[in-house]
Amino acid sequence: MIEPPYLLFLGDAPDMLAAKVAVGIRDWRPESAVGQLRLPDCNADLGLKDMSLSEAREKGARTLVIGVANRGGVISQAWKTVLVEALEMGFDLASGLHNLLRHEDDLVAAAQTHGCSLHDVRVAAAAYPIANGKKRTGKRCLAVGTDCSVGKMYTAMAMEREMRGRGMKATFRATGQTGILITGHGVPLDAVIADFMAGSIEYLTPDNDPDHWDLIEGQGSLFHVSYSGVTMALIHGGRPDALILCHEPTRSHMRGLPHYVPPGLAELRDTALPLAQVANPACVATGVSVNTQHMSDDEAKAYISSVEDELNLPATDPYRFGAGKLADSLAAM
Amino acid sequence: MIEPPYLLFLGDAPDMLAAKVAVGIRDWRPESAVGQLRLPDCNADLGLKDMSLSEAREKGARTLVIGVANRGGVISQAWKTVLVEALEMGFDLASGLHNLLRHEDDLVAAAQTHGCSLHDVRVAAAAYPIANGKKRTGKRCLAVGTDCSVGKMYTAMAMEREMRGRGMKATFRATGQTGILITGHGVPLDAVIADFMAGSIEYLTPDNDPDHWDLIEGQGSLFHVSYSGVTMALIHGGRPDALILCHEPTRSHMRGLPHYVPPGLAELRDTALPLAQVANPACVATGVSVNTQHMSDDEAKAYISSVEDELNLPATDPYRFGAGKLADSLAAM
Repeated sequence: MIEPPYLLFLGDAPDMLAAKVAVGIRDWRPESAVGQLRLPDCNADLGLKDMSLSEAREKGARTLVIGVANRGGVISQAWKTVLVEALEMGFDLASGLHNLLRHEDDLVAAAQTHGCSLHDVRVAAAAYPIANGKKRTGKRCLAVGTDCSVGKMYTAMAMEREMRGRGMKATFRATGQTGILITGHGVPLDAVIADFMAGSIEYLTPDNDPDHWDLIEGQGSLFHVSYSGVTMALIHGGRPDALILCHEPTRSHMRGLPHYVPPGLAELRDTALPLAQVANPACVATGVSVNTQHMSDDEAKAYISSVEDELNLPATDPYRFGAGKLADSLAAM
Repeated sequence: MIEPPYLLFLGDAPDMLAAKVAVGIRDWRPESAVGQLRLPDCNADLGLKDMSLSEAREKGARTLVIGVANRGGVISQAWKTVLVEALEMGFDLASGLHNLLRHEDDLVAAAQTHGCSLHDVRVAAAAYPIANGKKRTGKRCLAVGTDCSVGKMYTAMAMEREMRGRGMKATFRATGQTGILITGHGVPLDAVIADFMAGSIEYLTPDNDPDHWDLIEGQGSLFHVSYSGVTMALIHGGRPDALILCHEPTRSHMRGLPHYVPPGLAELRDTALPLAQVANPACVATGVSVNTQHMSDDEAKAYISSVEDELNLPATDPYRFGAGKLADSLAAM
């Protein structure tokens, strides 16, 4: 558990894209972000108040979150100065960088001296069990995609917000670095040892109130041969009651695999649903989330309408048109 | 790569079942086993010549393979004495124990002093790549099962022997500890980090002669919710041309999951084949391997015959009736 609230460190981010994690926190957990800290040559701006470490500490910030990718795979000396100073002032540090904080001797030393924590969210924080496949109380929804990076995290976050806004019990369950940094907890599934993947998801989504929904962040795709094993473990470990089918319709090939053509939504449904029903025979597909970022408004609406006709399921682009239809389906179950 | 030939260490094995790894080496790589080494209270006997360390060394043995599970999860002092002496005599050590050799300070020290290797086959020995999903030259066959422990390793080993006996080019590719110890190399797939599972299998089964068959050891089952992600990674990373469907027909529930009923062979085929065709559209199911150990001869023959009628595929129990039919199918491709 990463302690909120956060000060968001943008470092020397060359652009907003490099600050994806910080943008996610600002958008999805604004109450967790007291401000931003930027180095002189930073080109990203979250629109939050610029703060020094001491100002942020006065505002109650407990953790300095590295909300930016670093250049060249090295934690630079310019960053180091800030990070060590933060530890000296009592901040915990949290990072999703490939280079681990715990491998930097000066950070480890400062953290020990000042009693602070270093959170490397790419590293599994717990010893996960082997999955037992048992039914758990409460309900679970999993986003599955025709490909990687089609909006599965966004979909689950948007559903959480919509459902909480309606007074429903809902919890986004992070399974990747960005989601973990945004929400402060989760399982970095792509870093888990093979035998414990499904068990880590059972651990992440334990027994809960009968009317509570876990909204599980999807990973990979059953059709993406590099990561399909991770997706399979989510489907069986998550034991979902509901699947949301996620799709980006303009993609000509699978992400990173130029020789693979993405499947259609019907193929995704027909593949994912029987596999989910191995663990939970009652599982159903309840909606479709379309990532229409490369379409005009008219194109997007026409495409979504055609999907609804073809699959006989409610469809939306939750970023563009809200997650209401997806929440409606779960509310009706 | 574990250097043959081996001296097989049976320790204080309470029975033959505890010596499963050593039995596998004797049965499948008899040319690799110069003899066995047993402690005074050992109840297992491979029928190999009992040898001291120095006798085995004279016969050319290079590696002492721990062919037995240890009791209580501790490497006992009685074992230690033998293992340290072996290192002092220049043996490498190889082990599939949960307790790693590399975590035993006295073994590490002796190995360093004498320039010997400690092989812990439960630990990934290489940094595997992310899978790229590209077509590789040569052919690959993967054993998939309705459940765990239905005979997938045995099936692939028996096919290798049969095919080599016919002069075909065939290589068993180990994906588990026992298989790795038997053949001296492989990938301990259940210990690989999630993101690299499929890539590790691409690494294990690289480009080869057009008429060469990799016979890939299966793991888990698409229907076993604890391990299905591992199976999925094998199906996509292995990119098989041929699937062998493996089944144990008398099982009333999935192994370790009393609340899950095993699927039938047709369900396995209909689930595994479309998933395999995501990576290799030309993949076909070429045969069925039935584990008939709990059936009489008549029952076994009748069952196998009924399977052939139902699935229209050649079927056999390779342990009982040989792997000829399974090799025939691959030879015909």
